[in-house]
Amino acid sequence: MYKFYEFFSSGNCYKIRLLLTQLDIPFQRIEINILKGESRTPEFLSKNPNGRTPVLEIEPGKFLAESNAILFYLSEGTDFLPTDSFEKAQVLQWLFFEQYSHEPYIATSRFWITTGKAEEYREALNQKRAGGEAALKVMEKHLTEHQYFVGERYTIADIALFAYTHVADEGGFDLSGFPAIQAWIKRVQTQPKHISITQQV
Amino acid sequence: MYKFYEFFSSGNCYKIRLLLTQLDIPFQRIEINILKGESRTPEFLSKNPNGRTPVLEIEPGKFLAESNAILFYLSEGTDFLPTDSFEKAQVLQWLFFEQYSHEPYIATSRFWITTGKAEEYREALNQKRAGGEAALKVMEKHLTEHQYFVGERYTIADIALFAYTHVADEGGFDLSGFPAIQAWIKRVQTQPKHISITQQV
Repeated sequence: MYKFYEFFSSGNCYKIRLLLTQLDIPFQRIEINILKGESRTPEFLSKNPNGRTPVLEIEPGKFLAESNAILFYLSEGTDFLPTDSFEKAQVLQWLFFEQYSHEPYIATSRFWITTGKAEEYREALNQKRAGGEAALKVMEKHLTEHQYFVGERYTIADIALFAYTHVADEGGFDLSGFPAIQAWIKRVQTQPKHISITQQV
Repeated sequence: MYKFYEFFSSGNCYKIRLLLTQLDIPFQRIEINILKGESRTPEFLSKNPNGRTPVLEIEPGKFLAESNAILFYLSEGTDFLPTDSFEKAQVLQWLFFEQYSHEPYIATSRFWITTGKAEEYREALNQKRAGGEAALKVMEKHLTEHQYFVGERYTIADIALFAYTHVADEGGFDLSGFPAIQAWIKRVQTQPKHISITQQV
């Protein structure tokens, strides 16, 4: 059985819980409390030298890091990843967009605010605002013309972008000006076997 | 023939020039001067709504953005991307590492310094130092034990990480303390049909 090393409230970790659940794949979860430095211990660094969650242990001693690489690995050969080369590349385009242009702004803001560091990071939070708004605008434009991110169906591109977008308000980003994103969030939430970010599995 | 929209001095764009050249794929390059705002025009935004280079036009009107998604697309079915599922996922792990934990520090520092903005961004450059050093340490550790990043052979993971690592000095990062990285750089530079970042194609 897969062992899944995760920090429960992290959206990056939630992505994997959600896909594993929707794929009906059993797994054992192991909480790594990043607030207590548990992702920087020698033991954890032997699993992921970059010291970040999530990490999936595929078989004893065989580790995979980076949430979106794990999504790709788990979804290959399933309905969650297209087989067409160009569509697959479009999925990856959105996964890289998520990690480069979205997560560093929206997820990082949410982390600071939800861990009680809003005052300490006030200036940094202000600096994150424009980037987060820009990412939401790119998503809104796409979702005004499409139901999902790739191929007009639910894929891991939607899972990756859903993880932090649907809790963007916890990072101080107001989605009321993004009606197409709001409608897409509802479409994602009504997929079979959907679980919320707070649901224990 | 592919049309390739790029900003020549960008490492993200160089990745694609290098792979296209090593794959013997002809392409037409179109310079997008990001310093003159050419990646934010309505015309360019119709190709990539995220307003970034590189963009590959695969056939008229069919665009792919995000350097590492383009690398994946071009390398599928070639020796530059493993076919084994786990090795392919490991390649993706390093591609996401590159975009999240490496590029935002080393490439951004290089951009500010090489475009004459070092003074203006002095404080931000200082803030980028620790993240860049941490990424280089993760690479050094891996390369102390391995010749290449995945499967002991040259793949797009090496291309992606080579692009900004071999010019890290232009971002103010000294590689003299990273002998395994230096040896790997030489291995990459001696691959068949290698081109340098300044070589016109």
